[in-house]
Amino acid sequence: MNFDPLKEALAIKDQIISWRRDFHMHPELGYEEERTSKIVEEHLREWGYRIKRVGTGIIAEIGEGKVVALRADMDALPIQEENDVPYKSRVPGKMHACGHDAHTAMLLGAAKIIAEHSDALPNRVRLIFQPAEEGGNGALKMIEAGALENVEAIFGIHVWAELESGLIGIREGPFLAGVGKFWAKVTGKGGHGAAPHLSNDPIPTAAEMVLALQRIVSREVDPLKSAVVTVGRISGGTAFNIIPESVELEGTYRFFEPKVGRLVEKRIREILEGIARAHNTKLELSIEELGPPTVNDPSMAAFVKKVAEGLGLKTSEVRQTMGAEDFAFYLQKVPGTFIALGIKNEEKGIVYPHHHPKFDVDEDALPFGTALEVGIAFML
Amino acid sequence: MNFDPLKEALAIKDQIISWRRDFHMHPELGYEEERTSKIVEEHLREWGYRIKRVGTGIIAEIGEGKVVALRADMDALPIQEENDVPYKSRVPGKMHACGHDAHTAMLLGAAKIIAEHSDALPNRVRLIFQPAEEGGNGALKMIEAGALENVEAIFGIHVWAELESGLIGIREGPFLAGVGKFWAKVTGKGGHGAAPHLSNDPIPTAAEMVLALQRIVSREVDPLKSAVVTVGRISGGTAFNIIPESVELEGTYRFFEPKVGRLVEKRIREILEGIARAHNTKLELSIEELGPPTVNDPSMAAFVKKVAEGLGLKTSEVRQTMGAEDFAFYLQKVPGTFIALGIKNEEKGIVYPHHHPKFDVDEDALPFGTALEVGIAFML
Amino acid sequence: MNFDPLKEALAIKDQIISWRRDFHMHPELGYEEERTSKIVEEHLREWGYRIKRVGTGIIAEIGEGKVVALRADMDALPIQEENDVPYKSRVPGKMHACGHDAHTAMLLGAAKIIAEHSDALPNRVRLIFQPAEEGGNGALKMIEAGALENVEAIFGIHVWAELESGLIGIREGPFLAGVGKFWAKVTGKGGHGAAPHLSNDPIPTAAEMVLALQRIVSREVDPLKSAVVTVGRISGGTAFNIIPESVELEGTYRFFEPKVGRLVEKRIREILEGIARAHNTKLELSIEELGPPTVNDPSMAAFVKKVAEGLGLKTSEVRQTMGAEDFAFYLQKVPGTFIALGIKNEEKGIVYPHHHPKFDVDEDALPFGTALEVGIAFML
Amino acid sequence: MNFDPLKEALAIKDQIISWRRDFHMHPELGYEEERTSKIVEEHLREWGYRIKRVGTGIIAEIGEGKVVALRADMDALPIQEENDVPYKSRVPGKMHACGHDAHTAMLLGAAKIIAEHSDALPNRVRLIFQPAEEGGNGALKMIEAGALENVEAIFGIHVWAELESGLIGIREGPFLAGVGKFWAKVTGKGGHGAAPHLSNDPIPTAAEMVLALQRIVSREVDPLKSAVVTVGRISGGTAFNIIPESVELEGTYRFFEPKVGRLVEKRIREILEGIARAHNTKLELSIEELGPPTVNDPSMAAFVKKVAEGLGLKTSEVRQTMGAEDFAFYLQKVPGTFIALGIKNEEKGIVYPHHHPKFDVDEDALPFGTALEVGIAFML
Repeated sequence: MNFDPLKEALAIKDQIISWRRDFHMHPELGYEEERTSKIVEEHLREWGYRIKRVGTGIIAEIGEGKVVALRADMDALPIQEENDVPYKSRVPGKMHACGHDAHTAMLLGAAKIIAEHSDALPNRVRLIFQPAEEGGNGALKMIEAGALENVEAIFGIHVWAELESGLIGIREGPFLAGVGKFWAKVTGKGGHGAAPHLSNDPIPTAAEMVLALQRIVSREVDPLKSAVVTVGRISGGTAFNIIPESVELEGTYRFFEPKVGRLVEKRIREILEGIARAHNTKLELSIEELGPPTVNDPSMAAFVKKVAEGLGLKTSEVRQTMGAEDFAFYLQKVPGTFIALGIKNEEKGIVYPHHHPKFDVDEDALPFGTALEVGIAFML
Repeated sequence: MNFDPLKEALAIKDQIISWRRDFHMHPELGYEEERTSKIVEEHLREWGYRIKRVGTGIIAEIGEGKVVALRADMDALPIQEENDVPYKSRVPGKMHACGHDAHTAMLLGAAKIIAEHSDALPNRVRLIFQPAEEGGNGALKMIEAGALENVEAIFGIHVWAELESGLIGIREGPFLAGVGKFWAKVTGKGGHGAAPHLSNDPIPTAAEMVLALQRIVSREVDPLKSAVVTVGRISGGTAFNIIPESVELEGTYRFFEPKVGRLVEKRIREILEGIARAHNTKLELSIEELGPPTVNDPSMAAFVKKVAEGLGLKTSEVRQTMGAEDFAFYLQKVPGTFIALGIKNEEKGIVYPHHHPKFDVDEDALPFGTALEVGIAFML
Repeated sequence: MNFDPLKEALAIKDQIISWRRDFHMHPELGYEEERTSKIVEEHLREWGYRIKRVGTGIIAEIGEGKVVALRADMDALPIQEENDVPYKSRVPGKMHACGHDAHTAMLLGAAKIIAEHSDALPNRVRLIFQPAEEGGNGALKMIEAGALENVEAIFGIHVWAELESGLIGIREGPFLAGVGKFWAKVTGKGGHGAAPHLSNDPIPTAAEMVLALQRIVSREVDPLKSAVVTVGRISGGTAFNIIPESVELEGTYRFFEPKVGRLVEKRIREILEGIARAHNTKLELSIEELGPPTVNDPSMAAFVKKVAEGLGLKTSEVRQTMGAEDFAFYLQKVPGTFIALGIKNEEKGIVYPHHHPKFDVDEDALPFGTALEVGIAFML
Repeated sequence: MNFDPLKEALAIKDQIISWRRDFHMHPELGYEEERTSKIVEEHLREWGYRIKRVGTGIIAEIGEGKVVALRADMDALPIQEENDVPYKSRVPGKMHACGHDAHTAMLLGAAKIIAEHSDALPNRVRLIFQPAEEGGNGALKMIEAGALENVEAIFGIHVWAELESGLIGIREGPFLAGVGKFWAKVTGKGGHGAAPHLSNDPIPTAAEMVLALQRIVSREVDPLKSAVVTVGRISGGTAFNIIPESVELEGTYRFFEPKVGRLVEKRIREILEGIARAHNTKLELSIEELGPPTVNDPSMAAFVKKVAEGLGLKTSEVRQTMGAEDFAFYLQKVPGTFIALGIKNEEKGIVYPHHHPKFDVDEDALPFGTALEVGIAFML
């Protein structure tokens, strides 16, 4: 590199922040990122990128050589913002509470710098601006559309609320969790609350199920490995004196190792089926794996660390989290690394967790993310 | 008596059925019995009764001497009728699915016959046409308004779906159950389904509560006595991957002996409080006794049996039921008997239980109820 | 009868008490009633009875005509007596804590009186002194040996701790409960307490079973009918830090109606099997009906009442109990009645329940039992 | 060092194996290590060590300078050996099933080599042969007796069944788990199994407790941290038809972080107390922390790695385990490292886990342990 990515990123810091605030004020939910993607597309075209549209997603390329992919997600959340800031969300009930506004702005900044130095670019850089990371698995749509074709390695940055502002958080191997979802409906027989013997009360049956599910994590998963089984919703009955026909349970499970995921899924099924049978109830059950764990390639993680340190950035090993990311799908197909960028700043009151109505981002950290993306693009 | 009540009742059978069908076609919910009570009042006035209005209820008197009370309830249910009969309910979503139309019609028939023989009447007869038996405790309104003043004894008839048409079902002592209601809200701390340790998940806590409540009936109430504890509704959470803040439970309990009712209530409270405390959750709990058991006075039950047999009616001992009746409130204050009148007729397809959308009444039995009421009025 | 059975019984009261105290001091467990039966046999032979030995049991007859059977049970219990009385059990760890000593003594008294009046005896009287009522189903051995051949009716008396001394307690229909027993062993896989994932922990599985069994009584048996399901023993594991291979559960169930017994048995099986399957454990299960309910023939109960009142004894309707009696087996084959004899006397401190280490009998009541047996023998 | 510890250790390999087999044939339980310690003491005296006796334990020193401690444990387990080998345990029901025989033999070998080179020894080497590691916390006795006085660093080796023979397993930070023990007795009221309402059945209460304890690990401990809560024993009742007075529960818990240990202990207490209160039962509860986690000092672990590699041994990072070690007590006081020595050898059929009746040790690995101990003694 014949230029200093960090210096250039700091030079356009105001621009990056301005983009971020604009996106923040105009949050769009998954697969509805019309305005956001239009703005992104216009800039990329202006800077000479080759553009492919994938719904509200964009695949953009510049340069030649081996393909390095950089990804940002663009979608917001159905949360009502409670921050009192000039750039507060202007859309009632929607908010960039997970920092995807910052991701998009940082990658836009990187796109600008890369384009300005495209003559010296040793690689083909592919930018993936994806929709619907939050529960929509937008990554799969982008992969279907060819986002990973010929890709050597892929990288993505996520702002990280538990990491001090400006730190680059790196982790080898499993970083975010694999995630699944289950839904069950246990149907007995409804009737009058005064005549339980004429019904088949599904409420105690569902209660047994909830308690029995606890043993998956407490007894069956290796205590040295991580897993979560959460029943998030239980719902049965409409009146105090009527035994309902059925009860519904819904929940999620998390894991890092596929083998653990398989065990959890198998045991959810066996437990619910066994207890349903014990009480002559009908069980409808669907268990769906929503996404795999996000597993960073160790050599790519080491590469990112080296790039970051070469740029003068501070790095830190970051803790695993049972949260999930659809970036995992990219890493199933090609090597790469998902990177955390610290944005916590207690002095500024930026201390709230992701998805909190008061979540915010220390914008001083954004140029670091941009610089790292540029560095990766040039140095792979 | 210088007349035969059964003969006279059979003579006006068409009239009684016609009233019943009219009421059936125009069902009115509790405390909304405007049309029904207007029709009742007009007839009673015409026949010379002294009338006192109590909302949509009526207290009517005739004769002098010791006071004999006869009671009918007039309210319908929020059920969509599924019978295909000429007199089918004309009000969508409302139906006389518990036979109060028949009760009103039978007592109206008795009122007519009594009035015709009022010269020979040895007693002061008080007719109570009450509103809102179904969950409204209309009986309490009537008692407040003086319905039981100076009453020697009170009697009420209920059509009885499990008894053969025309049989008079009699039971000494506890007949219908006492009933209570409980509502509980257990509040932990909500949060992300992937981070249970940062929440206090109320769903397993509520599940423990449901299972622990089972032991009240299975272990703590004398197995030779009857009780029911039903959780009719459990509800917590809105999404598969979010741990809810709280879960609500609602239920009913039933009993015949006040001591058993006290025990059940005490144990519901202790169990929910203990388990809430075990998991550092907040418990909001209300337990409300809705009504006492319906306890027939043995000598009054014997009197009714004698009257019925004197009229040539067939009697039968009838089984207890865990269902409830606000007639219980009258019997707490004065002696009396609640009487079952068989209306089941398999040949006519009249086999459905109370509160069923296909519930119906064998109208051939109605004059027997009328005759019995007249007999009681004259013979007490 | 040309004599007064009560007068004659009172005349030999000291003798009856003396027999009872002798048996009380020398209690023998089920099928070990050697001494007791030897004494009984010697007396019966002396008084002219025709004797048939059935192990430690005795069938003895006198007279001709239709056969009236009278039954006493002779076995004691493995309980250490805590009464401080001259006739306290001399056998450590054994005690007549259920009054079978009194039953034997009363019937011996009756045998004496009957023999003295055998010339006037209109019936063939068969005395059944049976072994092993307590859990041994000695009645079945006696029936096998022909105890019920040609029997017109059978009667047995049990001293009754909740009834005032001297009262004759009578009940038509179901009196004592049917009884069953279950034993289950749930086998998972043992291992180190620090590595639950390498085991299949049977302790939470057994705990689920215990809680799920509660719903049989609380939800599935008609609340107007009686049933009990008790887990009397749970046992698994030997050390705090080792996961055991298996857990054992043992219990009993009680019922009055065979249909209820069938339901309870079916549900125990289904619940244990379903939960065992839910957790991939092996279930060994045996469910055994030990005895039917003791159901008194209504006309025979009425007959006993008439006899008792004819003798000048006071009678009382006695409550059902979930306790069980192998007299039930006799009543399955021939009509008859099981009779309670009040022996409670608060003044004398005789207030302890059956099977209590301080259980005792008000001996003043014993001649009443003897007199009633004589009366039955002559008046059937 | 002017000699090669590995070469010298290999030279006395037969001696080391011979010691190990002798100890193996004569296993002694905790605090009963009379024979073992006598043999150890005799050799140490012979080689010039200064000896201090601590019960069946030995503290032995040689050389001057800063104190390096090396520890072996000597106790066996109450397990019946199932191996068919010439050196099989000759004591019925006792066995070296955890390899402490090997630990003692290896350190004896090291003692010999160190003594032979004591002129060149730069440190004061203290050998700790401790009793009762298995549940006896023998380490505490040795510490009380001064085993750690002036100690610079302490090291111990444990043979490791899941590691390939000869590998040196090293781990920084928490290695083995902290361990606690709980015992609870829940007392209701006993009685006849047919009359649960006269008792307070503690069996369903204990079942609720077992299930509620599952949530500590499944819901309350951070899923990224490790914990175990095991109920190893549940025991209540003696007969199928008697409700017992009480049920006992016993269990263990494991953790790596003291904060997690505190949470688990607090929650066990709260859960058992809350549920006991919910059912009006008396709770006796003791919770005892038996030992802390075994936490290796990172710089000492690095030192051991360097020494091992310097000796030509192969090292490997070893997995954490929820098992526990009283070596943890030494590491609470002074820096040091607990080292794993691989002894698994599938070809030889040496594949059974610790505490298994077929546990054995690939003796070819023993000189490596001896060599490493010598190396540490000289190179610290």
